[in-house]
Amino acid sequence: MLAMTLLFNRLVIAGVGLIGGSLGLAARARGLVGEVIGFGRTEANLQVALERGILDAYTFDPAEAARGADLLLLAVPVEATGPVAEQFVPFLPAGCVITDAGSVKEPVVIALERLLPPTLPFVGAHPIAGTEHAGAAAAVATGVGMRVEEMDMGTHDQILARVSHLPHMIAFSVMQAILDARVAGIDLLAYTGSAFADLTRVAASPVEMWRDICLANREALLAALTEFEDALAQMKAWVASGDDQALAAAISRARAERQRLTRLRERA
Amino acid sequence: MLAMTLLFNRLVIAGVGLIGGSLGLAARARGLVGEVIGFGRTEANLQVALERGILDAYTFDPAEAARGADLLLLAVPVEATGPVAEQFVPFLPAGCVITDAGSVKEPVVIALERLLPPTLPFVGAHPIAGTEHAGAAAAVATGVGMRVEEMDMGTHDQILARVSHLPHMIAFSVMQAILDARVAGIDLLAYTGSAFADLTRVAASPVEMWRDICLANREALLAALTEFEDALAQMKAWVASGDDQALAAAISRARAERQRLTRLRERA
Repeated sequence: MLAMTLLFNRLVIAGVGLIGGSLGLAARARGLVGEVIGFGRTEANLQVALERGILDAYTFDPAEAARGADLLLLAVPVEATGPVAEQFVPFLPAGCVITDAGSVKEPVVIALERLLPPTLPFVGAHPIAGTEHAGAAAAVATGVGMRVEEMDMGTHDQILARVSHLPHMIAFSVMQAILDARVAGIDLLAYTGSAFADLTRVAASPVEMWRDICLANREALLAALTEFEDALAQMKAWVASGDDQALAAAISRARAERQRLTRLRERA
Repeated sequence: MLAMTLLFNRLVIAGVGLIGGSLGLAARARGLVGEVIGFGRTEANLQVALERGILDAYTFDPAEAARGADLLLLAVPVEATGPVAEQFVPFLPAGCVITDAGSVKEPVVIALERLLPPTLPFVGAHPIAGTEHAGAAAAVATGVGMRVEEMDMGTHDQILARVSHLPHMIAFSVMQAILDARVAGIDLLAYTGSAFADLTRVAASPVEMWRDICLANREALLAALTEFEDALAQMKAWVASGDDQALAAAISRARAERQRLTRLRERA
């Protein structure tokens, strides 16, 4: 057993969902925090977090939660990050570090820099974790402790628009298209295989969280959508014109790049 | 040990890849076939199939393979199905059943009905199996023996365009878009998580096979692409106009349908 240093005495998690709960579990498992206090809207979820040992206690009162806090994690939907921080600001002790877990950084950083006094340092963060599941019940202690990288907020949002937000928009749209397609009154889902299931897995993601992300990262997401629409339109044109060589070249290029991703993931 | 009935004396597999090899392994595991003969282009792959016990022997000579065959499985890319069948026709004994495993049925059925004498019955088939991997090395004995359903070829192709061919086109196009997007010279793949990995898994699929499928099912695929483009354009318009209610409703609808798919798959 290693002797570990307590980094924080009181961690307050606002939003004890998949990410908030997972970070809480990980911080406890590594002995980095003295106590963990939950703050949220839904008592049933906070109760699950308590029973799972993610929290020592929970409260609906920001003043009570903030007492003695030296780390506040804002793990709520992006649009709620500013408003929730605002509830805490009057009660947080000077020096309490504030961080978040949002998938979009620019609006969060701008809102919090406007909101916070110089005595409350903000370190925005984005753990690229998460699944299509939600709530404290879906939290896991692993999945934390990965490669840490510093990045300006604009670059972060440009990257995430392409590697995360676009894939979600595609998954949502595929489900819409399948719902609206009528092939002889057949339930198309009954004929799907693993390709379809994997492509659309994240379409089951939390609604409020993804509505917020799409709108908070609007500009970058629209650019990413246009890039994808153009690539798809090009593939479609090759199918329409029967250009077997262009199609094969494009599939081959996509395949090589996807195989590179497999190698990257195996190394990570 | 159950006593099993030998359904076929000699199964010839033309194209001992993931699907051909898997069906061969499954037929052997269930004692349904006397011997299994492989036919293909690539000796290294046929050698793997022999070493893995998929085949009793292989040959590059259709006449030799056809001798005594009572089941011929055409598990080659869609566009090659007709030409390969043509090589076998002069040598197949009367009554030999011919089947295929192609993801598109109309062009295959039309080509083979034109080609085959009445003494050679054709039963087109499409095992909805397969992964992004290819070749005899990727064959598995399980994944066979699923629900069997009869369907006319046009309906099959309409359905598969939406549940399989469209997802592949999307995956290929996402990889193209990511390759062409330049975000401050950053390697976007280094920032992908499981959402992106799952969405694009099938982009690593075999090139020739998918080029053929796209072109063989051109009309239905173009219709499916248009449906998807429309759904995506609608989502994009809501993002652009900041319509949070319409976005939330669409995500919610997609989510409910994707959760229904999870339940369908758990039951299967």
